Amino acid sequence: MSLTAQVRVLYADTDQMGVVNNVHYLRYFEIGRAEYLRDRGTPYKKLEEMGLKFPVVEAHLRYREPARYDDLLDIETEVEDLRAASVQFKYAIRRGAGSGPAVGAVLCEGWTKHACLNEHNQLKRFPDFVLALLRPTGVASR
Amino acid sequence: MSLTAQVRVLYADTDQMGVVNNVHYLRYFEIGRAEYLRDRGTPYKKLEEMGLKFPVVEAHLRYREPARYDDLLDIETEVEDLRAASVQFKYAIRRGAGSGPAVGAVLCEGWTKHACLNEHNQLKRFPDFVLALLRPTGVASR
Amino acid sequence: MSLTAQVRVLYADTDQMGVVNNVHYLRYFEIGRAEYLRDRGTPYKKLEEMGLKFPVVEAHLRYREPARYDDLLDIETEVEDLRAASVQFKYAIRRGAGSGPAVGAVLCEGWTKHACLNEHNQLKRFPDFVLALLRPTGVASR
Amino acid sequence: MSLTAQVRVLYADTDQMGVVNNVHYLRYFEIGRAEYLRDRGTPYKKLEEMGLKFPVVEAHLRYREPARYDDLLDIETEVEDLRAASVQFKYAIRRGAGSGPAVGAVLCEGWTKHACLNEHNQLKRFPDFVLALLRPTGVASR
Repeated sequence: MSLTAQVRVLYADTDQMGVVNNVHYLRYFEIGRAEYLRDRGTPYKKLEEMGLKFPVVEAHLRYREPARYDDLLDIETEVEDLRAASVQFKYAIRRGAGSGPAVGAVLCEGWTKHACLNEHNQLKRFPDFVLALLRPTGVASR
Repeated sequence: MSLTAQVRVLYADTDQMGVVNNVHYLRYFEIGRAEYLRDRGTPYKKLEEMGLKFPVVEAHLRYREPARYDDLLDIETEVEDLRAASVQFKYAIRRGAGSGPAVGAVLCEGWTKHACLNEHNQLKRFPDFVLALLRPTGVASR
Repeated sequence: MSLTAQVRVLYADTDQMGVVNNVHYLRYFEIGRAEYLRDRGTPYKKLEEMGLKFPVVEAHLRYREPARYDDLLDIETEVEDLRAASVQFKYAIRRGAGSGPAVGAVLCEGWTKHACLNEHNQLKRFPDFVLALLRPTGVASR
Repeated sequence: MSLTAQVRVLYADTDQMGVVNNVHYLRYFEIGRAEYLRDRGTPYKKLEEMGLKFPVVEAHLRYREPARYDDLLDIETEVEDLRAASVQFKYAIRRGAGSGPAVGAVLCEGWTKHACLNEHNQLKRFPDFVLALLRPTGVASR
């Protein structure tokens, strides 16, 4: 079960190759997982207010085709792996409708892995309601 | 009395006009005032550890000439105005030595005004040692 | 005549003061004027394809209240001044609906001034259709 | 054979967890490989002027310990893999001297893979002088 969010490419996101610079995709990934959590009912802000933190501990990006200025990008996000105290989100970024001819092609794909920490920055098992929130439909957590 | 810091323009700082995008100069200004304070003996980090915060309350930027990829920029910083609970830094960014023919021309100039807040985000008069730190040589604070 | 665009504050936009760092507002301003032009019928991308460029030559920002993580910001944009070869956009950023109690307060306001350049980076008078695009309703260009 | 470059963490690089946000490390990686190439005698800017482009096609980051405001980071860069038309740089970011007690610990490590493109964005074999530039001492290119 995935969620698709959108982001418009800014001029400030391009570089002198005329395409989106590689550093910006981790921002797009953040948009993807934020909207994923919001869609499941609990924005990350609420989780943080409850004393939980999900810092990124690992990230991977594969840049397939360049995104360009003013493209409206679709950021497709899903939970790829869920453990007792870590979760991995998977992303696929596509050129969205209204962004010219090559709509739908994957421009960048990747994943981020997050640990679950408490307020004292100690590793913590996900509370049950967070496991339920993150659990992909039809997939049991391991 | 000014202090000159340096920053190298990253590829990620350029945009598809082939020049540094306007949004990045506020970062360069931060580098300028951080090195100014360090040079005067008290890095901003130390001030913050003492419970002081100097958030930006106003900023102005005049873009004169484009900076380009890999330019080594000189960021000249000085205190332009010092009040009981606010300070204004002034910046001039020049293309530095080793960055091609037009060395020394001002590319961007501007200023940032900062309030002094305590840990509870209340406006606070600068402690005396901070006034001494910020006071431009030969200029009395008002 | 103004146009209101929206942006969601990212975690990556906050700093360790717990608020949006000052450098990000120039990005928000870009979103504001991009959507203003799109709403008037000609996205900036189209203008650039016609050989026109509107680089920022001056910018001003006044930070009134901090924006916070996950705030949904309203970016209100209008044309404040229109000359033969330059235009000034004015922005007011407010906490939008769904962002907690203090909806509507201006968090940051400012302006950006842009020159009109042709493909050779020479100053150029705005073509008539661009003047019509930029002209605030009921206000003659000077 | 590696090259160590340095970068100072900006306030704008921190987030409300009080640490450097994950998105900024790809900027630090860029600094690392730019200084690596400069040290070997040919800055990337020169390569681009010769019509070569090395866009990032894949990136990996492992975040081990948080970097903090004002840390002076050491970015250690080396070539990990060199093929006929692609190169992989490997990075290790450590807290440098003058950044408090835990000097030397690896905060973030990762790699970026780059294709070699010509001016028409076609895959191109590295010219011999670039192979020599990128070849790690004592390691034959494959």
